[in-house]
Parts: sequence; C-alpha cells; structure tokens
Amino acid sequence: MPKPSERGLQMPSSPIRKLAPYAVAAKEAGVKVYHLNIGQPDLPTPQQGLDALKAVTRKTLEYSPSDGIPSLREKLTHYYAKFGIRLSPEEIIITTGGSEAILLSFLACLDPGDEIIAMEPCYANYISFARTAGIVVKTVTTTIENGFALPSIEAFDAAITPRTRAILLSNPNNPTGYVFNAEELQRLKEMVVRHDLFLISDEVYREFVYNGVPFVSALTLGIDDHVIVIDSVSKRYSECGVRVGMLVTHNRQVHDTVMKYCQARLSPPLLGQLVAEASLEGTEGYAAACYQEYKARRDFFIQALNRIPGVYSPMPGGAFYTVASLPVEDAEDFCRWCLTDFRYRGETVMMAPCAGFYRTPGLGRNEVRMAYVLKIEDLQRALEVLQAALEAYNNR
Amino acid sequence: MPKPSERGLQMPSSPIRKLAPYAVAAKEAGVKVYHLNIGQPDLPTPQQGLDALKAVTRKTLEYSPSDGIPSLREKLTHYYAKFGIRLSPEEIIITTGGSEAILLSFLACLDPGDEIIAMEPCYANYISFARTAGIVVKTVTTTIENGFALPSIEAFDAAITPRTRAILLSNPNNPTGYVFNAEELQRLKEMVVRHDLFLISDEVYREFVYNGVPFVSALTLGIDDHVIVIDSVSKRYSECGVRVGMLVTHNRQVHDTVMKYCQARLSPPLLGQLVAEASLEGTEGYAAACYQEYKARRDFFIQALNRIPGVYSPMPGGAFYTVASLPVEDAEDFCRWCLTDFRYRGETVMMAPCAGFYRTPGLGRNEVRMAYVLKIEDLQRALEVLQAALEAYNNR
Repeated sequence: MPKPSERGLQMPSSPIRKLAPYAVAAKEAGVKVYHLNIGQPDLPTPQQGLDALKAVTRKTLEYSPSDGIPSLREKLTHYYAKFGIRLSPEEIIITTGGSEAILLSFLACLDPGDEIIAMEPCYANYISFARTAGIVVKTVTTTIENGFALPSIEAFDAAITPRTRAILLSNPNNPTGYVFNAEELQRLKEMVVRHDLFLISDEVYREFVYNGVPFVSALTLGIDDHVIVIDSVSKRYSECGVRVGMLVTHNRQVHDTVMKYCQARLSPPLLGQLVAEASLEGTEGYAAACYQEYKARRDFFIQALNRIPGVYSPMPGGAFYTVASLPVEDAEDFCRWCLTDFRYRGETVMMAPCAGFYRTPGLGRNEVRMAYVLKIEDLQRALEVLQAALEAYNNR
Repeated sequence: MPKPSERGLQMPSSPIRKLAPYAVAAKEAGVKVYHLNIGQPDLPTPQQGLDALKAVTRKTLEYSPSDGIPSLREKLTHYYAKFGIRLSPEEIIITTGGSEAILLSFLACLDPGDEIIAMEPCYANYISFARTAGIVVKTVTTTIENGFALPSIEAFDAAITPRTRAILLSNPNNPTGYVFNAEELQRLKEMVVRHDLFLISDEVYREFVYNGVPFVSALTLGIDDHVIVIDSVSKRYSECGVRVGMLVTHNRQVHDTVMKYCQARLSPPLLGQLVAEASLEGTEGYAAACYQEYKARRDFFIQALNRIPGVYSPMPGGAFYTVASLPVEDAEDFCRWCLTDFRYRGETVMMAPCAGFYRTPGLGRNEVRMAYVLKIEDLQRALEVLQAALEAYNNR
C-alpha cells in the first residue's frame, strides 16, 4: 500500500479544528457546546447579500474570470478608497477566501526554503500554508505581558537571514486582537525597505478597530511595490461560507505571477462573488450595527473574563479574538477535558488551545484563543461554564 | 523592489487562457468570437440547482465543514453507486472544484521532487498544479495516429524511476476525448500494484461516454488503497462557476492527510454545495438530455472538422474535447492570428494551441484542442470561419 507524502504526514492539524471530533461527540450526547474556538460570526449576512441569491437570473452558473467579476473589483476600489487606499480594479484579484490569497502570496513571493517572518502567536493556518508552499516561518514573539505589541526592531533584525523574503503581518491581529499603530507600521516600513522585503499584510479585520485610533493599511505606507494585502468579505459581512477573498497589490510583477496560479484553478466561486458584490452597497448601517455589537461584546467579554480567578486577557483593540492565559499548565489538555469530561448544567465550552499558534516550543501552553462571536448572554453563560470548569479541573 | 519567486516566474501561463487578452480586444472591436478554446458549457444548469438558490433560508452564510456538507456527501454515495462504486460519505471530501482536488492529491501523495507519470497531451493545469506542489511530471506520449490510446506498458516502465509515486489518469480524457477501456485499465492496475504506486484518476467527464462501452472507474479495479478519484459537478451540471469538486478515496491515510490541508483552507464554497446537492436529485432527464446534446454535437463536429482540407481529428469517445491537427506549422501563431488579424463576416474563432498540453518540446505544435460546447449551428459557423482562416493564413 503506497504511503502519503512525508510533507502531508508532517502537516499540522488545525489547532482550531483538531478538537472538533470531541465537540461532535459531546453534542451527540446532548451537551450544549459554546463555541469560542472559531471565528464563525453568528451575526446575519446583509439582506442585500441574501437577496442577491434570489435575484440570480442567469441560466448557466458559468466560470467567472480568473481574477474575479469586473464589477465586483470596480466596487471594491470605492470600498478601499474609504480607507485612503487608491486602487484600480486591475490591482485586485478575487480569491477563494482570504485563505487562497495567503497561499498564493507565499507561492508568488517566496521560493521553497525561503523565509518569512511572522509574529507569534500567529494565525495557525499561516503555518499550514507556509508548509504547503515549502517556505520557512521564522517568528518573533509578542507577549501577553506586553499586550502583544510590535516586538523591537532588534528582534526582527535578529530573525532576518539571507533567505528572508517577506514579513507577514496580521492587523488587526488574529489571534491576539492587537491593532498596530502608525508608529509601529513606520518601523515595519523602514525595515521592509532596508532589507528589500515584501510586506504581506492580512487586513481582513480592518473594520473592527475599537479604540478610536484610525486603522492604518500597509497600502498607505508609500511602499507600494513591497506590499501585498490579504483581504476577505468573510467576517466583515458574516459570509464566511461564500469563500470570497482578495489579494491586492500595486506590484505588477507580483500581480501577474499570482494570476498564473489563478488561471490554473480557473475561477473563484461565482455565487459568492454575487453575494459579496451586493454586500458592498447600501450596507453602511449594517456595518455600523455589527461594529457596535462586536464592540459591546468585547467590552463585556474581556472584563468578565478577567474577573475569573487566575485568568488574564489584555484588552484587544480590534478583530473579535483574544488570547487569554488560564490557571492551568496544559491548555490543550484542559480544552479537551472540557469537551470529553466536563458538563455544567448540561453545557460545556470549546476554546482553541494556543500552543498551536506559536512556533517556539513551549510557548502559549497555558493560553487559549477565544472568539467573542456569540451573543452577550451566551458569552456570559460560556464564561460561567469556563469558571466552573477551571475550578473542577484544578480540583480533580 | 523585491522580485517574485523564481517558481512563480517559471510558472507556465495557461494555454487555454493565455490568448484571452486578444479575444477581449477582438470583442471590444465588435468581432464575434466563437469560443472553442475553453470547456465552458453553454447548456443550462439544472433548474433544481438554480431553485436551490431561491430556497436559501439561512440568515448567515456560514462555513461548511472542511470536508463538505454531510447531506451532499451522503447523496453522492447514491450517485456513485450507479457506477458500481461503493462508498461511505466519509470517503468523499468536497473540494473547491476538481482543481483543488488535483492539487491536494499531489500534496498528500507526493513529496517535492517526487515524480508522477501522466499521459501527454494532458490537461495543462495538471502541470501547473504539479509545479505548485513541487513535483515532477514525467510523460508517456499518446499519439493522434493511434487515436490517443493507452501507450504500451513498456513506455510506462521506461518512465518509472525510484522517485515515481503515482500515475495520473484522465478518463474520459481531457484534451483528447479518449475513453480508456477495461483492458487498458487492467494493464494500468497491474503496473500500479507492481510498483506500489498511487493511481490518481480524474473522472470528471464520466457521464459523457458516447460509444456504448460502459465507463470503468478506477474505484472499481479492486485496488482501493491505491486509488484517488478526482471529480467535479462543473461539467456534469453546467455549473462550473459553483466550484464544487470531490476527492474520493478508500485510503484512510490519504483521506486524513488531505483533510489537514482542507482544514487549513477552512471550507469549500457553501452556496455551490447547495446547488450541487440539489442538482443530484431528480435530474435524470436533464442528464440524458445533456448527453444526447453533446453526442449530437460530437457527431456533427468531428465529421465536419475532418472535411476541412488538411485537418484531422480522431473520433473522441467521451468528454467534449478533441485534439485536431491543422495544416499549419505553428498552431499557437495561427490561433493568435485568428484573434488579432483574421475576420470572416465580422467573426473569428478561438482555439487552445496544443503545445502547452505536451511536456516533450516540439510535440503538438500543429495541434489545437477544441471544445464542442456550442450549439450545432454555432459549431457549424465556427468551422466555416476556421476553414476560411486556414486558407487565408496559408495564403498570406
């Protein structure tokens, strides 16, 4: 019997989804599971987007162009203009979710064995896509004590080698919720220019910045040829399932290289593009309501979380995640135990153990990533369950 | 300015889509272009599939499971049973089109530098996905003189090295339309077992087999652990844009390895899955009508094509493509010239030059791939244009 590839066997399981079978088993046993593990928003998709499905009149659901529907790309230029980002439709490539945009940026900018510098903890799937592309992720560590702010330039410089080709930024950050300020971005800019690197900036949570500081896109730093922005409509419009993302760059060579990969996979999803395009127009009120809802959840959730004995979370400035430290030694064991052994009033809670978001062995073992994508009353119940679980776990 | 990766720069342009800018320019100049270059069916999507969009009642278009919606996978087991293929839903992974299934099978079965044997001419994007995965495509050549039948086992044996991990089959074949018979599949089976290889079998055109010989799936050869089948609803239901494919295997290790890649990209397109699921039921009449239509087109098209002086095409047994030789030295130059310089009654024709479907330099230079996915009257007009173009080109 032939064996799978070594790279496939070594591919890490998703720390977000690896506990999923235990959650399924718990639910099958009638237990209610509060999902704090995954960024699946519970808010509705904009009605305009849902209506677009009802309005489909085409008789054949044909391929769209490899770079996406022109009218969608045109409307996106107006969207980006609101953030001070000036683009032509030819600088936007529609991808199958932000996920594909990440992989394509890696393939187009780095050769196998080349290195990219990311901040840890980082979105775990960055590491999976890096493995897929055969590139090496070097990390500089952000710390919970420091609120996950940008590490020193010295730390970056120490990580740079002759194989370094890019810096990977997630801003607002997944999993920490940290929002990088203008001064931090200036520091990154200088480093990127000094070492002639790409800056791959994942800005899918751009709309969710809560502290009144304006969001700064990497595309406004004045280093156009260096920047590739990853984007997605998934979280912005609560339409994760439509799989529509974007890869945005002023760098023509990178654009044209990415397009060769896009042509090979023929086209991004047609129906998702129709929903995304409709979601872009007349949804200012929707966006404002989502923003207020997430902000209220954040304010409630982080305060309540910090009231649980032994638990600490910084106040995240954006996105809808936080990384919290728990009074346990091995958060993965605790998270699994919550699903397999613990019930409180017939309920339990699911979180993503954070070790899988770090590259440096041993870091984050007592941390979890939590997404506040539930209603406040459910968040409150989830935290009651968490508090009871911590007590029971530590008194086993 | 940082440069794109070497692998990206060396990625081939799609031979199907590389002439697209010339077609766009011709259309902008008011010229009607008959598209024989791309397998974009003009037949309607089943009404059941379109109705599924109108029937969407969910308020949030959320992620689907990484391996696809369970009810879709369940219905697919009944579909496959009609072809004698016995599967459980856990042996089917829903992918973002057949395209993603191809890439994932390469990643999960082969390491960088490993070799896969394909028959040339082959679907050009196989080569793109192989480059993406860093694997090496070795080819054995099928010839137009031999009707593109299976090469001798000696030819395969000569191509096998210690790095060979898999054989890649496209059956019915894209681009040649050849359908491999039971005896040929037995020969492949023996070779696969003898060398302990994977057999990756792309069977997306399974329903389009015209010569009364039953289609034989690689999944019915009795070598379960060796076989990965690539599938897609794109052509079957004229819904290429929904991006729903499948990777099917009894090999649990391969399944679980593929799933790690699937978890990284989170989920296949939700809306496409709803359309695909609806398209699976109550569409026997639809499928029969499509089949008859393609068969009639094939019969008309191949006969008419062979009446053009100097043109030759074998009679393809399946799919909706053929590879034809033209009385020109450089088919790519001719195809480009048709778009840039030639007009006949204000019309021209677009074909895919075949050299890009071969790996061996120099092969296929006088060949084109043509898809008969237009109405017969349009096919007739397209061939009139082609005949006039050949005369004009050779009398320049």
